[in-house]
Amino acid sequence: MERLRDLDEAELLARVVPRYAATRGVVRDPAPVGPGDDAAVVAAPSGSVVATTDTMVRGRDWRDEWSTPQDVGRKVVAQNLSDVAAMGAAPTALLVALMADPETPVDWCLGLADGIAAAAAEAGAEVVGGDVSAAGPGQLVVAVTALGDLRGRPPVLRSGARPGDVVAVCGSLGLSGGGLALLEAGEGLQDDAAGAPRGRAVTGLVAYHRAPQPPWGAGLVASAAHAHALVDVSDGFVTDTGRVARASGVRVDLFGRVLREHFAAGPLTLALGEVEAMRQVLTGGEEHSLVGCFPPDVDIASLPGPAWVVVGRVRPAGDEGPVVTVDDEVPDAPGWDHFAR
Amino acid sequence: MERLRDLDEAELLARVVPRYAATRGVVRDPAPVGPGDDAAVVAAPSGSVVATTDTMVRGRDWRDEWSTPQDVGRKVVAQNLSDVAAMGAAPTALLVALMADPETPVDWCLGLADGIAAAAAEAGAEVVGGDVSAAGPGQLVVAVTALGDLRGRPPVLRSGARPGDVVAVCGSLGLSGGGLALLEAGEGLQDDAAGAPRGRAVTGLVAYHRAPQPPWGAGLVASAAHAHALVDVSDGFVTDTGRVARASGVRVDLFGRVLREHFAAGPLTLALGEVEAMRQVLTGGEEHSLVGCFPPDVDIASLPGPAWVVVGRVRPAGDEGPVVTVDDEVPDAPGWDHFAR
Repeated sequence: MERLRDLDEAELLARVVPRYAATRGVVRDPAPVGPGDDAAVVAAPSGSVVATTDTMVRGRDWRDEWSTPQDVGRKVVAQNLSDVAAMGAAPTALLVALMADPETPVDWCLGLADGIAAAAAEAGAEVVGGDVSAAGPGQLVVAVTALGDLRGRPPVLRSGARPGDVVAVCGSLGLSGGGLALLEAGEGLQDDAAGAPRGRAVTGLVAYHRAPQPPWGAGLVASAAHAHALVDVSDGFVTDTGRVARASGVRVDLFGRVLREHFAAGPLTLALGEVEAMRQVLTGGEEHSLVGCFPPDVDIASLPGPAWVVVGRVRPAGDEGPVVTVDDEVPDAPGWDHFAR
Repeated sequence: MERLRDLDEAELLARVVPRYAATRGVVRDPAPVGPGDDAAVVAAPSGSVVATTDTMVRGRDWRDEWSTPQDVGRKVVAQNLSDVAAMGAAPTALLVALMADPETPVDWCLGLADGIAAAAAEAGAEVVGGDVSAAGPGQLVVAVTALGDLRGRPPVLRSGARPGDVVAVCGSLGLSGGGLALLEAGEGLQDDAAGAPRGRAVTGLVAYHRAPQPPWGAGLVASAAHAHALVDVSDGFVTDTGRVARASGVRVDLFGRVLREHFAAGPLTLALGEVEAMRQVLTGGEEHSLVGCFPPDVDIASLPGPAWVVVGRVRPAGDEGPVVTVDDEVPDAPGWDHFAR
């Protein structure tokens, strides 16, 4: 098997960069300078650029037994572009840094590039540059930076929610967390049960955990609809919505019935049972769906693109402060923490 | 000693983010949205943004015995911003991702932030965002993305050099490579010889290797002077200049006498001897100085800011193709390669 140490840097790049060619031209304003010079030049037609970075570490953020390199590529793109979307921006460009043990198979790196390219092309972002670097034995780290354009509109911050706003979710909830719980329980990697209804549900959750499919473009839709606040679900629905509540100084009341019937019912409940399904809806991380707070006069049902589901209402912060409630109770919903785990 | 595992992510960020406050406002157009939301928003007054990423891995790109966390921070900023400068741009913003073993001392992370903030403030770039993530035992990786603005001018590419251009260098050559060679030989970490002339030279080289001081702002000067091509010295002077030669389809003739008298003489020769000094000038990496190819009518001596030294001339590519020569000979100057080392 060919490994990174068998190639020099130029040979590796000569194989990786063409994998990203599929992303050239998927963006409305292609980058004037792509890979190959000291730096890329990316169009920023709004006169500003949205920028964010997010990383994945083997053994922490993925396991090779569970995820293909294509999965890892898709996931790291989803993580980054959902942060761009959560500002109300359209993605424009990605930079990809890979720190890898020289014993890493070359095919793994090419698979990673394929996964990144596929997700980037779907989302409308070009891969414009990156870096490769040797790391120690067993180490494999992917660091991605995503850029986006606001299309002339102001950014949609976490701090803009106002009492009376309608709270809506675009995308799923709990699938990624549910898939992770199944993998940790040793389920979802065998295909033999995939034919049965629960088997199909398990497979779907695990697939979403491995390669999330957030609603590309929904951030732009929310911004065009004058959303007051936006956040993506990366650490858990209640945790991330709580960040909006705190930043805005408001209380967010969520409707338990909608969460149960729209998000927890179906595959999640089939695979995990009702109680665990609802727990994953409220606390599961890495879903990368969007939570928006919209002015009450916005007709949520008629927004273009993937559906937004009304899940709650923004209220003035009461005695309990800027909290999130489900059916008027503050849920016990710890989110993901990187170091305390 | 307090370690990362003793803090949750919010507590760590509450200590790190204020370290970057010194960089707020150092840029001409401050970022409309800094750290704390899903992503940052950075001003891009030219309607485009220069973007690059570069990483450092402990044990590969630095050793804890040789470098303080402040050194690592300064070095990773220099690496990134010299790539921005090499496009002819002014730096605007940095994003910093840290992947760290939870056993890493908190003080190391704060020192890294201080080094990044100090170099960023000197260079005129704001730290606008980042990411922290847990990594495996002993792992410590810093991934930085730098953004820049072209101030309304076109990017200065590697491919623009033309026969007749004057080749000039801004900054030093060989100091970083020389410092590394000394450290590898076990020299430069003791202060006892620092008083003697060679001791001072050794200390200077090692200090430059640990925390390069490239000429911030020189890229912008070159662009304003209508430089045809620019590159920064990251893998070695001849290697990087060779990239300009190949991209432009030209031959670059370097003047050995100038390189010897201006760059190799002095501390490099004092510390390493004449032969090794010249070898480091030609092949030493991580210097992050700039090499520019200017139209022949540009008065190099009168460029504002740090001095540019004329070191060569661009010629049409001859029978040997787009090569770099020193006194008409192609030098044997292998550059740095990440995986083949």
